[in-house]
Amino acid sequence: MKAKLEKLNEIGAEISDLSYAAAVLGWDQQVNMPPMGAEGRGNQLAALERLIHLKLTTPELGELLEDLIAETRDLDPDSDDVRMLKVSKRNYDQAVKVPPEFTAKVAKVTAMAFGAWHSARQENNFAKFQPYLQQIVELNQQFAGFFAPYDHVYDPLLDRFEPGMKTADVKAIFDALRPQQVELLQTIADAPQVDNSFLFLHYDEHKQWDFGVDVITHYGYDWMRGRQDKAPHPFTTNFGVNDVRITTRVDPDFLNPALFGTLHECGHALYELGVSPAYDRNALAGGASLAIHESQSRMYENLVGRSLPFWEFFYPRLQATFPQQLGNVDLHTFYKGINQVKPSLIRVEADEATYNLHIMLRMEVEIALMEGKLAVKDLPEVWNQKMQEYLGVTPHSDADGVLQDVHWAGGMIGYFSTYALGNLISVQLWQKILTEIPDLYDHIRAGKFESLLDWLGSNIHIHGKKFEPQELVQRVTGSKIDSAPYMQYLKDKFGQIYGI
Amino acid sequence: MKAKLEKLNEIGAEISDLSYAAAVLGWDQQVNMPPMGAEGRGNQLAALERLIHLKLTTPELGELLEDLIAETRDLDPDSDDVRMLKVSKRNYDQAVKVPPEFTAKVAKVTAMAFGAWHSARQENNFAKFQPYLQQIVELNQQFAGFFAPYDHVYDPLLDRFEPGMKTADVKAIFDALRPQQVELLQTIADAPQVDNSFLFLHYDEHKQWDFGVDVITHYGYDWMRGRQDKAPHPFTTNFGVNDVRITTRVDPDFLNPALFGTLHECGHALYELGVSPAYDRNALAGGASLAIHESQSRMYENLVGRSLPFWEFFYPRLQATFPQQLGNVDLHTFYKGINQVKPSLIRVEADEATYNLHIMLRMEVEIALMEGKLAVKDLPEVWNQKMQEYLGVTPHSDADGVLQDVHWAGGMIGYFSTYALGNLISVQLWQKILTEIPDLYDHIRAGKFESLLDWLGSNIHIHGKKFEPQELVQRVTGSKIDSAPYMQYLKDKFGQIYGI
Repeated sequence: MKAKLEKLNEIGAEISDLSYAAAVLGWDQQVNMPPMGAEGRGNQLAALERLIHLKLTTPELGELLEDLIAETRDLDPDSDDVRMLKVSKRNYDQAVKVPPEFTAKVAKVTAMAFGAWHSARQENNFAKFQPYLQQIVELNQQFAGFFAPYDHVYDPLLDRFEPGMKTADVKAIFDALRPQQVELLQTIADAPQVDNSFLFLHYDEHKQWDFGVDVITHYGYDWMRGRQDKAPHPFTTNFGVNDVRITTRVDPDFLNPALFGTLHECGHALYELGVSPAYDRNALAGGASLAIHESQSRMYENLVGRSLPFWEFFYPRLQATFPQQLGNVDLHTFYKGINQVKPSLIRVEADEATYNLHIMLRMEVEIALMEGKLAVKDLPEVWNQKMQEYLGVTPHSDADGVLQDVHWAGGMIGYFSTYALGNLISVQLWQKILTEIPDLYDHIRAGKFESLLDWLGSNIHIHGKKFEPQELVQRVTGSKIDSAPYMQYLKDKFGQIYGI
Repeated sequence: MKAKLEKLNEIGAEISDLSYAAAVLGWDQQVNMPPMGAEGRGNQLAALERLIHLKLTTPELGELLEDLIAETRDLDPDSDDVRMLKVSKRNYDQAVKVPPEFTAKVAKVTAMAFGAWHSARQENNFAKFQPYLQQIVELNQQFAGFFAPYDHVYDPLLDRFEPGMKTADVKAIFDALRPQQVELLQTIADAPQVDNSFLFLHYDEHKQWDFGVDVITHYGYDWMRGRQDKAPHPFTTNFGVNDVRITTRVDPDFLNPALFGTLHECGHALYELGVSPAYDRNALAGGASLAIHESQSRMYENLVGRSLPFWEFFYPRLQATFPQQLGNVDLHTFYKGINQVKPSLIRVEADEATYNLHIMLRMEVEIALMEGKLAVKDLPEVWNQKMQEYLGVTPHSDADGVLQDVHWAGGMIGYFSTYALGNLISVQLWQKILTEIPDLYDHIRAGKFESLLDWLGSNIHIHGKKFEPQELVQRVTGSKIDSAPYMQYLKDKFGQIYGI
């Protein structure tokens, strides 16, 4: 067994090394690559991905996994080896069930779909994207078919991003939450509104950058194991546990994107930096799921970065950095401003009280598309109806509506819900943390973030992919993913801000 | 035959894509990687190199090449296909003759040798490096053995960097040149010296950077297909013909490193940018050899960048950029200053009149080591004797002598001569260019560099690896590599500057 495990680790390490190599190429593509390098980079990435797929699907690996799973049947099911085998088997099954021709077809369709989506959005012409979206829906249905039987056609899609999650579970969670969020939004709309105009002044880009760096250094971001660069669409990536990089963008006329974007990506990065080094280069490396990942980024962005104690520490520094813009804005005005609730058309600009509604809408139409209950051509109309129903706003154009996100053009259906699940999980964890570190807000107020990172490190980060998301949340908080704490958090926070 | 050629191109493209991927990782390692990322990066590069070696040595490739070479026997020997086959065969033979265990051993020894060299240099303690250098010499002797029979044990080493070049040829070239360079140096030493103290003032780093960018933009560096970054040891790398990147370093208290380093690397980059796109991803991609490459970098650095016509155009701009430092330094004083001849201990700081002597010394001791006529332990003494003999200076310490270069610690013996050969070739080409573009200096004086780049593009760059270095020089200039033009160039240039 030991020799077989070593062999498996060797194969796993090679797959991992090649995947990290591809990730370096992907990072460079978005951060550095000169424009004309795109075609060559496409070839390089394709070559790597072919090899990775080949290695992921060798029959030798399949046999090794079968043998090892049989041979480890009597071991502790929570041991690293058994868990690593489980995740490896899952990866193997997913890789072998999807024929290479299908993957090639998806790559081809999405390459064209991306161009079509891009110009459809620019020209506000959904018809241009419609045939490609049609194909993408069909490809996703076909993809689900590879994993039949399933409880719901959407399950295999969701499972790609949230191992073990079922459509029925997510629907139940969202169905309970949606009416309450809609109701809260209505109450806020009826209350006196808060001002945030001071966020839209001119803020020097270098100073914005440096301020973000100061905050995430306090958060505990390890510059010996990471770096920050500019990218048009911020993201976090890593090439092992000791090279975890973040990116951000800076808007010289709006304070939020760089500031909260940096804190958000830092949350992702702290997670990857905290995964057990013992898992590096094996199947347990990296975050457990997109939702768990998002729980970390949203926690550092919102629960910490949009909290009053945080700004009690950092606001004097921010004022000193931008005396002209903020010298006459007091702490509470600033705090309210960065927490302004305002239903808007665009998901990525949404505040904490509206964000999940954007997600629920997307998941609902995705499920309907996958079930065949909604025709692609009817999508804009349904989109706009739901926007009005949930958020009280109707897009002026499809560009600001159904065409706003790139995910579908990239072939990804089943991804969106992870954003909202991440929000819910972040608050479940937060409540647990507050019971175990009762003076956490005092630490934050003093600019001390070690206790928070230590807690997350030992309860979440270190486990990597060892536990599935629901299992991890259950182990740590005592309950599965639940919307109640999040709803209570919204009511408390915005009730106080809006005096309701 | 067509199907076989297609198959060969497919294999070649994959090898090329993976090699470019490795180059991206190498670039990132030197330019961006956070310190702690080193171990993971080593694993990623090792995984890629293993795969590349595997693909380079598959018996299928060997058979395909045999078949194709037989089947193309009647084709034009100068056709792209025949040449591509020849270079592919060469690469294949080189890859299969070296056992993977040997390559692994070299990697292991050089990894340790690098550390030993680094501390040996810091502590000025040759004894610390000696056993590793001993091993490296033996490994290089073993390497040569894989290519027996050979005319000279040094031939297989040289051939790695200069396809087709023989030790006897290089020795003959250098033996003719050395006494003349030594003599010129003596004459210069006896003449009144020139001042360059103004180069060692404080020069703002950003302004230095921008000035370099301005010059290489004039040179024709294509920013859509390249970029410049900082690196401690400047280099040029490329990931295909459309992504060719340079790096530079900036010394705030010395004008030369950033300025001439940037021009030098740009010369390398223009070469790679000019290789026929038809060769991209096959065996003919990239520069013909290190010496041909160096001829391009040295041409743009020295023949252009240290010429009077160049500074007639650029000096007013440089003065305007640094009025405090250069406002009172006239053009001719500046021109003389950047061309100051001064025998020094360190190769990388050497001027045009002394540089080759540093190289010849290295090649002579390398050959003696390889022949077994010089013991590693006696190397420092021989080094110092030759330094005195050729340059009239004796190192105070081995750190400034035999320990100064990293090449041997990296396992590379046979590399150095390419630097001097590049100098010689640059002047041979330059003379040819002047006959074909008689008003070239007028173009340069007007800041116009298109005619030069066009000429190099169509005579050198476009051919990639199609011709071996000697063959290429012969085709373009009508003679093989020859030191006479370079010697004449030195005499003319420094005769004028030093009034001799």
